[in-house]
Amino acid sequence: MTESWLNKVNWSEDGLVPAIAQDAATGRVLMVAWMDRDALKRTVDSGEAVYWSRSRKKLWHKGEESGHVQKVKEIRLDCDSDVILLQVEQQGGIACHTGRESCFFSRLEQGHWVETDAVLKSPDEIYKK
Amino acid sequence: MTESWLNKVNWSEDGLVPAIAQDAATGRVLMVAWMDRDALKRTVDSGEAVYWSRSRKKLWHKGEESGHVQKVKEIRLDCDSDVILLQVEQQGGIACHTGRESCFFSRLEQGHWVETDAVLKSPDEIYKK
Repeated sequence: MTESWLNKVNWSEDGLVPAIAQDAATGRVLMVAWMDRDALKRTVDSGEAVYWSRSRKKLWHKGEESGHVQKVKEIRLDCDSDVILLQVEQQGGIACHTGRESCFFSRLEQGHWVETDAVLKSPDEIYKK
Repeated sequence: MTESWLNKVNWSEDGLVPAIAQDAATGRVLMVAWMDRDALKRTVDSGEAVYWSRSRKKLWHKGEESGHVQKVKEIRLDCDSDVILLQVEQQGGIACHTGRESCFFSRLEQGHWVETDAVLKSPDEIYKK
Protein backbone atom coordinates (compact mmCIF):
# COMPACT_ATOMS: atom_id res chain seq x y z
CA MET A 1 0.00 0.00 0.00
CA THR A 2 1.39 3.39 -0.92
CA GLU A 3 1.21 6.09 1.69
CA SER A 4 -0.18 8.85 -0.46
CA TRP A 5 -3.11 9.11 1.97
CA LEU A 6 -0.62 10.29 4.61
CA ASN A 7 0.52 13.05 2.26
CA LYS A 8 -3.06 14.30 2.00
CA VAL A 9 -2.94 15.32 5.64
CA ASN A 10 -2.00 18.95 6.10
CA TRP A 11 0.65 18.46 8.78
CA SER A 12 1.58 21.60 10.68
CA GLU A 13 5.10 23.02 10.65
CA ASP A 14 5.96 20.82 13.62
CA GLY A 15 4.54 17.79 11.80
CA LEU A 16 1.42 17.37 13.93
CA VAL A 17 -2.34 17.52 13.67
CA PRO A 18 -4.93 17.38 16.45
CA ALA A 19 -6.89 14.13 16.69
CA ILE A 20 -10.28 13.90 18.37
CA ALA A 21 -11.34 10.57 19.87
CA GLN A 22 -15.10 10.12 19.93
CA ASP A 23 -16.90 7.16 21.51
CA ALA A 24 -18.32 5.22 18.57
CA ALA A 25 -21.29 3.99 20.58
CA THR A 26 -22.36 7.08 22.54
CA GLY A 27 -20.93 9.92 20.45
CA ARG A 28 -19.26 11.43 23.50
CA VAL A 29 -16.08 13.33 22.72
CA LEU A 30 -13.49 11.63 24.90
CA MET A 31 -10.24 13.50 24.34
CA VAL A 32 -8.05 15.43 21.95
CA ALA A 33 -4.43 14.51 21.44
CA TRP A 34 -1.86 14.99 18.67
CA MET A 35 -0.62 12.76 15.90
CA ASP A 36 2.40 12.88 13.69
CA ARG A 37 2.72 10.92 10.49
CA ASP A 38 4.07 7.86 12.23
CA ALA A 39 1.36 7.90 14.90
CA LEU A 40 -1.38 7.99 12.28
CA LYS A 41 0.23 5.20 10.28
CA ARG A 42 0.60 3.04 13.38
CA THR A 43 -3.00 3.76 14.34
CA VAL A 44 -4.18 2.50 10.97
CA ASP A 45 -1.87 -0.51 10.93
CA SER A 46 -2.67 -1.62 14.49
CA GLY A 47 -6.32 -0.58 14.74
CA GLU A 48 -5.54 1.10 18.07
CA ALA A 49 -5.02 4.79 18.69
CA VAL A 50 -1.39 5.92 18.76
CA TYR A 51 -0.65 9.56 19.48
CA TRP A 52 2.38 11.81 19.68
CA SER A 53 2.95 12.99 23.22
CA ARG A 54 4.08 16.62 23.03
CA SER A 55 5.16 16.61 26.68
CA ARG A 56 7.13 13.37 26.52
CA LYS A 57 8.15 13.91 22.88
CA LYS A 58 7.51 10.34 21.87
CA LEU A 59 4.90 8.07 20.39
CA TRP A 60 2.22 7.11 22.84
CA HIS A 61 0.16 3.98 22.35
CA LYS A 62 -2.91 5.07 24.28
CA GLY A 63 -3.55 2.59 27.07
CA GLU A 64 -0.01 1.20 27.12
CA GLU A 65 0.18 1.83 30.87
CA SER A 66 -3.46 2.11 31.90
CA GLY A 67 -4.89 -0.62 29.69
CA HIS A 68 -7.35 1.97 28.40
CA VAL A 69 -6.71 1.17 24.77
CA GLN A 70 -8.85 2.74 22.04
CA LYS A 71 -9.98 0.36 19.31
CA VAL A 72 -10.38 2.47 16.20
CA LYS A 73 -13.55 1.94 14.18
CA GLU A 74 -13.33 4.83 11.75
CA ILE A 75 -10.93 7.61 10.80
CA ARG A 76 -12.08 10.88 9.26
CA LEU A 77 -10.29 14.00 8.05
CA ASP A 78 -11.77 17.48 7.93
CA CYS A 79 -12.15 19.83 4.97
CA ASP A 80 -8.82 21.57 5.64
CA SER A 81 -7.15 18.18 6.11
CA ASP A 82 -5.68 19.35 9.39
CA VAL A 83 -7.84 17.62 12.00
CA ILE A 84 -8.38 13.87 12.46
CA LEU A 85 -11.56 12.40 13.97
CA LEU A 86 -11.45 8.86 15.36
CA GLN A 87 -14.47 6.77 16.24
CA VAL A 88 -13.26 4.49 19.02
CA GLU A 89 -14.29 1.73 21.35
CA GLN A 90 -12.83 2.92 24.64
CA GLN A 91 -11.55 -0.05 26.63
CA GLY A 92 -12.38 0.24 30.32
CA GLY A 93 -14.75 3.14 29.63
CA ILE A 94 -12.10 5.62 30.75
CA ALA A 95 -10.22 7.91 28.38
CA CYS A 96 -8.93 10.55 30.81
CA HIS A 97 -5.81 10.21 32.93
CA THR A 98 -7.88 11.57 35.84
CA GLY A 99 -9.94 8.36 35.76
CA ARG A 100 -12.98 9.89 34.10
CA GLU A 101 -14.78 8.72 30.98
CA SER A 102 -13.96 11.90 29.07
CA CYS A 103 -11.34 14.61 29.42
CA PHE A 104 -14.14 17.16 28.95
CA PHE A 105 -15.46 16.96 32.51
CA SER A 106 -15.56 20.69 33.23
CA ARG A 107 -18.60 22.68 32.16
CA LEU A 108 -18.93 26.45 32.17
CA GLU A 109 -21.75 27.47 34.50
CA GLN A 110 -22.35 31.15 35.19
CA GLY A 111 -18.73 32.15 35.01
CA HIS A 112 -17.23 29.09 36.66
CA TRP A 113 -15.81 25.84 35.36
CA VAL A 114 -17.66 23.12 37.24
CA GLU A 115 -16.47 19.50 37.32
CA THR A 116 -19.58 17.57 36.34
CA ASP A 117 -18.27 14.04 35.91
CA ALA A 118 -17.38 11.43 38.49
CA VAL A 119 -13.97 9.80 38.74
CA LEU A 120 -14.64 6.17 37.81
CA LYS A 121 -11.29 4.83 38.95
CA SER A 122 -8.57 6.61 40.88
CA PRO A 123 -5.40 7.42 38.93
CA ASP A 124 -3.38 5.70 41.67
CA GLU A 125 -5.19 2.50 40.86
CA ILE A 126 -4.96 2.99 37.09
CA TYR A 127 -1.23 3.67 37.02
CA LYS A 128 -0.11 1.45 39.90
CA LYS A 129 1.86 -0.87 37.65
CA MET B 1 -18.76 39.07 36.46
CA THR B 2 -15.03 38.66 36.81
CA GLU B 3 -13.22 36.89 34.04
CA SER B 4 -11.17 34.49 36.11
CA TRP B 5 -12.76 31.62 34.15
CA LEU B 6 -10.94 32.95 31.07
CA ASN B 7 -7.65 32.75 32.94
CA LYS B 8 -8.27 29.07 33.65
CA VAL B 9 -7.90 28.33 29.94
CA ASN B 10 -4.39 27.27 29.03
CA TRP B 11 -3.95 29.55 26.01
CA SER B 12 -1.10 28.60 23.71
CA GLU B 13 1.84 30.92 23.06
CA ASP B 14 -0.10 32.50 20.21
CA GLY B 15 -3.10 32.96 22.48
CA LEU B 16 -5.32 30.31 20.92
CA VAL B 17 -6.98 27.00 21.76
CA PRO B 18 -8.80 24.61 19.44
CA ALA B 19 -12.58 24.54 19.81
CA ILE B 20 -14.69 21.59 18.71
CA ALA B 21 -18.30 22.21 17.70
CA GLN B 22 -20.52 19.19 18.27
CA ASP B 23 -24.19 18.99 17.27
CA ALA B 24 -26.09 19.01 20.57
CA ALA B 25 -28.90 16.89 19.15
CA THR B 26 -27.08 14.24 17.13
CA GLY B 27 -23.61 14.23 18.69
CA ARG B 28 -21.98 14.63 15.31
CA VAL B 29 -18.68 16.48 15.39
CA LEU B 30 -19.23 19.37 13.00
CA MET B 31 -15.96 21.27 12.87
CA VAL B 32 -12.86 22.40 14.70
CA ALA B 33 -11.80 26.03 14.72
CA TRP B 34 -9.72 28.25 17.00
CA MET B 35 -10.59 30.69 19.73
CA ASP B 36 -8.66 33.42 21.42
CA ARG B 37 -9.70 34.97 24.70
CA ASP B 38 -11.94 37.52 23.05
CA ALA B 39 -13.63 34.91 20.84
CA LEU B 40 -14.50 32.76 23.85
CA LYS B 41 -15.79 35.73 25.80
CA ARG B 42 -17.96 36.84 22.89
CA THR B 43 -19.23 33.29 22.47
CA VAL B 44 -20.37 33.23 26.07
CA ASP B 45 -21.81 36.74 26.01
CA SER B 46 -23.73 36.28 22.74
CA GLY B 47 -24.64 32.59 22.98
CA GLU B 48 -23.35 32.12 19.43
CA ALA B 49 -20.01 30.65 18.39
CA VAL B 50 -17.30 33.20 17.66
CA TYR B 51 -13.90 31.93 16.50
CA TRP B 52 -10.54 33.41 15.61
CA SER B 53 -9.80 32.97 11.94
CA ARG B 54 -6.11 32.13 11.63
CA SER B 55 -6.15 32.74 7.87
CA ARG B 56 -7.95 36.09 8.02
CA LYS B 57 -6.43 37.03 11.38
CA LYS B 58 -9.66 38.36 12.79
CA LEU B 59 -12.64 37.37 14.86
CA TRP B 60 -15.16 35.34 12.95
CA HIS B 61 -18.76 35.18 14.07
CA LYS B 62 -19.62 31.82 12.55
CA GLY B 63 -22.50 32.25 10.12
CA GLU B 64 -21.98 36.00 9.64
CA GLU B 65 -21.93 35.50 5.87
CA SER B 66 -23.60 32.13 5.42
CA GLY B 67 -26.32 32.48 8.05
CA HIS B 68 -25.07 29.17 9.47
CA VAL B 69 -24.89 30.46 13.01
CA GLN B 70 -24.16 28.08 15.90
CA LYS B 71 -26.34 28.55 18.98
CA VAL B 72 -24.23 27.43 21.91
CA LYS B 73 -25.92 25.15 24.44
CA GLU B 74 -22.92 24.12 26.51
CA ILE B 75 -19.22 24.86 26.83
CA ARG B 76 -16.72 22.38 28.23
CA LEU B 77 -12.98 22.45 28.84
CA ASP B 78 -10.68 19.44 28.87
CA CYS B 79 -8.39 18.21 31.64
CA ASP B 80 -5.39 20.13 30.29
CA SER B 81 -7.56 23.24 29.89
CA ASP B 82 -6.36 23.62 26.32
CA VAL B 83 -9.30 22.39 24.24
CA ILE B 84 -12.86 23.76 24.22
CA LEU B 85 -15.91 21.64 23.37
CA LEU B 86 -19.12 23.38 22.32
CA GLN B 87 -22.52 21.76 22.11
CA VAL B 88 -24.32 23.69 19.40
CA GLU B 89 -27.57 23.97 17.51
CA GLN B 90 -26.35 24.33 13.94
CA GLN B 91 -28.60 26.74 12.05
CA GLY B 92 -29.33 25.55 8.52
CA GLY B 93 -27.88 22.13 9.31
CA ILE B 94 -24.63 23.06 7.57
CA ALA B 95 -21.37 23.74 9.39
CA CYS B 96 -18.86 23.30 6.57
CA HIS B 97 -17.96 25.96 4.01
CA THR B 98 -18.26 23.23 1.36
CA GLY B 99 -22.00 23.08 2.05
CA ARG B 100 -21.90 19.85 4.02
CA GLU B 101 -23.31 19.18 7.47
CA SER B 102 -19.87 18.45 8.94
CA CYS B 103 -16.33 19.32 7.94
CA PHE B 104 -15.43 15.66 8.60
CA PHE B 105 -16.79 14.32 5.34
CA SER B 106 -13.74 12.28 4.30
CA ARG B 107 -13.35 8.76 5.65
CA LEU B 108 -10.26 6.59 5.34
CA GLU B 109 -11.12 3.44 3.41
CA GLN B 110 -8.36 1.01 2.50
CA GLY B 111 -5.70 3.64 2.03
CA HIS B 112 -7.87 6.31 0.44
CA TRP B 113 -9.77 9.30 1.78
CA VAL B 114 -13.31 8.89 0.46
CA GLU B 115 -15.84 11.73 0.51
CA THR B 116 -18.85 10.12 2.14
CA ASP B 117 -21.20 13.06 2.69
CA ALA B 118 -23.41 14.90 0.25
CA VAL B 119 -23.20 18.63 -0.38
CA LEU B 120 -26.49 19.96 0.97
CA LYS B 121 -26.20 23.42 -0.57
CA SER B 122 -23.65 24.68 -3.05
CA PRO B 123 -21.11 27.16 -1.69
CA ASP B 124 -22.03 29.52 -4.56
CA GLU B 125 -25.53 29.65 -3.18
CA ILE B 126 -24.42 29.93 0.45
CA TYR B 127 -22.01 32.81 -0.14
CA LYS B 128 -23.84 34.60 -2.94
CA LYS B 129 -24.51 37.69 -0.85
